Amino acid sequence: MTQLLRVQNFTMSRDGVAAGVDQSFESPFGLDHSTLMSWCGATASWPNRTEPGGTRGLDDYFARDFSNNIGAEIMGRNKFGPQRGPWENLEWEGWWGDEPPFHTPVFVLTHHERPTITLSDTTFHFIDAEPSEVLARAKAAADGRDVRLGGGVTSIREFLDADLVDTMHIAVAPIDLAPGLTLWESPEELNDRFEHEVVPSASGIVHHLFWRK
Amino acid sequence: MTQLLRVQNFTMSRDGVAAGVDQSFESPFGLDHSTLMSWCGATASWPNRTEPGGTRGLDDYFARDFSNNIGAEIMGRNKFGPQRGPWENLEWEGWWGDEPPFHTPVFVLTHHERPTITLSDTTFHFIDAEPSEVLARAKAAADGRDVRLGGGVTSIREFLDADLVDTMHIAVAPIDLAPGLTLWESPEELNDRFEHEVVPSASGIVHHLFWRK
Repeated sequence: MTQLLRVQNFTMSRDGVAAGVDQSFESPFGLDHSTLMSWCGATASWPNRTEPGGTRGLDDYFARDFSNNIGAEIMGRNKFGPQRGPWENLEWEGWWGDEPPFHTPVFVLTHHERPTITLSDTTFHFIDAEPSEVLARAKAAADGRDVRLGGGVTSIREFLDADLVDTMHIAVAPIDLAPGLTLWESPEELNDRFEHEVVPSASGIVHHLFWRK
Repeated sequence: MTQLLRVQNFTMSRDGVAAGVDQSFESPFGLDHSTLMSWCGATASWPNRTEPGGTRGLDDYFARDFSNNIGAEIMGRNKFGPQRGPWENLEWEGWWGDEPPFHTPVFVLTHHERPTITLSDTTFHFIDAEPSEVLARAKAAADGRDVRLGGGVTSIREFLDADLVDTMHIAVAPIDLAPGLTLWESPEELNDRFEHEVVPSASGIVHHLFWRK
């Protein structure tokens, strides 16, 4: 069975912004990320849901596919935390507390390696390597399942540039957020390499699905 | 975690037909079912796929959700085989050969019980009981996961009438097949009890998603 590298539920604004320019401890995404991700929070399958209820329409299929057949994640250092440069605070163990929502090995891209962290059933490895080598390590750790490329923008662009991404689900929210970090100027940039379907949802989200030609 | 009863990938024609009137060994669905299910066969995640390739757009999400968090299936006897009345041929063990695509316990609704059959990781139990009792047994066997209601038409109607169905995904194919067995005259019949989203796919299939209000 082929192991894929998949981008899942990566959400941006209508004007292409997926992260703000000023990430900090107080503002993990450098912008109001709760508005951007509210489509996912409304679904029954939202991993952080604590109350019963939630929608079970189209958006819920995407929400619950987040972990379907995923055996490892690759994420950028800026998704893991707000520190830059050499680690000054090794007590920082990510945004997610004692029960991170990944439940697999996670490979954090960084030029500053540090010891592996295990929190419940998630293990964070810190790795300074080329995308192809990181992907090889993540696939080996994924126990035959696929690897999720968790973002942010910079990491996804890096793996796209290396032509290592197999499928992408990008959710476009009906809000404007510029200025910020953008994944593309237009999704058509990818059409030379990827099949591309556009699926509007009743929630106002437009789901863009890409897979290799 | 709530265990749901889910109808998944149940496909009918534009004029509402999901099975023909003359099921037989030669014609398991009593009509040209390959045409009806070709949307699913075109996807990368189609369980019977033997060649690489296949689409990874919207239809593929539905194809691969077929077994996502499913721990048991309930099916009507007419899905299991073409015999009617008392079993005259106990050598019949379903359409699917030594490796059925269910990989869970399966509860076959019948007025004529017979011994359990185990084929690879699928176990067929034959049960003569009310829908609520069958569902209770399937949930107990599902190890905390959801139960798929696999059809056919008569079984789905029976569980809808008993108000036991939590979610339904009905795929409507752009072909006409009447006469035959129909699930509904119009999907609006269900709108008093269910939320209902209609999602057209690039393949020509229209996906109808229902979940309890």
